[in-house]
Amino acid sequence: MSNPNLRIAVIGSGTIGLSFAALHLSHPSNNRPGRTVQVVIYDPRPDLKEYIETTLPGYLDSDNAEERGASGMTVSSLLSTNRLIIASSLSSAVESADIVQEQGPENVSFKQNLWPQIESSAPERALFWSSTSGIPASVQGKNMRDPSRLLVVHPFNPPHIMPLLEIVPPGGKNADSSSVSAHVARTIEYWKSLGRSPVVLKEEITGFVANRLSFALFREAVHLVNTGVVTAEEVDRVVEESMGPRWAVKGPFWSYHAGGGKEKGLRGFLEKIGDTVQACWDDSGSPNLRRKLEEESPSSQGWEDSLCEQVEQAYGQLGDKDLKDRDQKTRKVLDITRK
Amino acid sequence: MSNPNLRIAVIGSGTIGLSFAALHLSHPSNNRPGRTVQVVIYDPRPDLKEYIETTLPGYLDSDNAEERGASGMTVSSLLSTNRLIIASSLSSAVESADIVQEQGPENVSFKQNLWPQIESSAPERALFWSSTSGIPASVQGKNMRDPSRLLVVHPFNPPHIMPLLEIVPPGGKNADSSSVSAHVARTIEYWKSLGRSPVVLKEEITGFVANRLSFALFREAVHLVNTGVVTAEEVDRVVEESMGPRWAVKGPFWSYHAGGGKEKGLRGFLEKIGDTVQACWDDSGSPNLRRKLEEESPSSQGWEDSLCEQVEQAYGQLGDKDLKDRDQKTRKVLDITRK
Repeated sequence: MSNPNLRIAVIGSGTIGLSFAALHLSHPSNNRPGRTVQVVIYDPRPDLKEYIETTLPGYLDSDNAEERGASGMTVSSLLSTNRLIIASSLSSAVESADIVQEQGPENVSFKQNLWPQIESSAPERALFWSSTSGIPASVQGKNMRDPSRLLVVHPFNPPHIMPLLEIVPPGGKNADSSSVSAHVARTIEYWKSLGRSPVVLKEEITGFVANRLSFALFREAVHLVNTGVVTAEEVDRVVEESMGPRWAVKGPFWSYHAGGGKEKGLRGFLEKIGDTVQACWDDSGSPNLRRKLEEESPSSQGWEDSLCEQVEQAYGQLGDKDLKDRDQKTRKVLDITRK
Repeated sequence: MSNPNLRIAVIGSGTIGLSFAALHLSHPSNNRPGRTVQVVIYDPRPDLKEYIETTLPGYLDSDNAEERGASGMTVSSLLSTNRLIIASSLSSAVESADIVQEQGPENVSFKQNLWPQIESSAPERALFWSSTSGIPASVQGKNMRDPSRLLVVHPFNPPHIMPLLEIVPPGGKNADSSSVSAHVARTIEYWKSLGRSPVVLKEEITGFVANRLSFALFREAVHLVNTGVVTAEEVDRVVEESMGPRWAVKGPFWSYHAGGGKEKGLRGFLEKIGDTVQACWDDSGSPNLRRKLEEESPSSQGWEDSLCEQVEQAYGQLGDKDLKDRDQKTRKVLDITRK
């Protein structure tokens, strides 16, 4: 967004909507000299103004208010300076918006009905974002004149804190690339200007990426509790005292690449404990877990080779300095989380 | 360990062995007045002394040396004060040990041959711990006179930093409980005195708990990379910017219990997005993932009910204060990890 004056329409005022509204309003990058960001909230609930006055401060207050020099930010000051506007209709909310960000009910026909209305009232250049956690853009935009305008921009809760945003364009690889690319580029530009971490998915897969990864671990956790190996509370403690802090600092591929040693990296890891990895998968539910990876592998040499090549290209050979940096950060994370 | 003078024999001087040795030697609780901890290292490598002199400082240095007032800890001072002893034979290493901690090669016959030797030289009351990541105590101790003495004490790498220790007694639920319990209780007491986080597993399952959880997420990550939805580097970023910091602060069950809202907790979460969770499992590899949970469920009402009951008993109803605490810690974690 090179536009210094940005108007963002937030449609739907649930937890996600207000968390996003607070982020747009209070982020330091949106409060620098020469930039005005205006947030318009629309929700059909009859008590919208009272509700926002009661609920939004919770998100604003907790947003490192002092650090960002915005500790005086109140709903009444935002309203009186027109930085926050409460709209009385959908069309007035979106009519001069640069971005329309939707978090309505997770219901296909609701969304399919909503977007053509937004499309007919919003400016041509407005970006359309849905925070849905499950309904693909290509399904939501079915009745739009130009469905290529609609992107899923899926946050990790709560979005005023968590940096990740999963950007999922309609139709995945088959999308009209030029038109979609422009929308994606402008979307990424905005989030990067706020120091956020957008990741563009190449396919509209069920559940997107973050939830799929999380649900895979959750499934194994349920299995271990079901079979009485550990309690639910013990599972939480295991995660909080091991892979949680590890993955806060470095993701799973980097970590296993480091775990395999300087010389061999991820290949060394798979050589050393690949059999244990597979035994755990087999024991967890189904031999299909392994077979499917073989079947879908993009390389005739099997999934391990193509994965290792990709990881080596991304990270090269990790050295003592990398491990030292990881360990120092991990200690600091543990100092915070174990208090 | 109520014993103020503790002698710990570390058998095997690889990464795990030296990391544990550094932890025992440098932890503040082992450096308080009136407590003497002596570490004896044995490894058949011919250059053991030179190797320890070169390698151990890396673990000691990085151990928050200043904070714990032990910044002057050097290998030569440890050796000259007999706090660190380099043993020339296995029997001399263990002959007056209170704890024998083994991290030799991951090889069944090696370990089955080693433990009877240790048993015949070590004092009756010594605890026996194996750091193995995969060979159950009941398998390792096959040739021991009293196999109930041997516990798996599995760290998360590197152990001088990560708090988790998985304690896996031999034979799981079928173990001779009185004898095993005493060993487990003394083992837990030592680790708690160091502020570590021991979790006792009720069964000797393949891969233990932490790795199984981690490998389950890893499998889904490989699948998403294999099918071109995201790159390996993007998977790492997704995890580092979302569930990593989340789980560093609060584990998966607590997090989903919070995600379901104050009133309903985990039940609300499963009501709202249980279908998406199951769709992700189905899409990931095999319908068995879901069916197996049903089959193994300890409750006739299905796995959801018994899980929710357990989580409700553990955490009760979460309130605004809990979420605020989580969010404040998460911000601090992100301040560290995103630098």
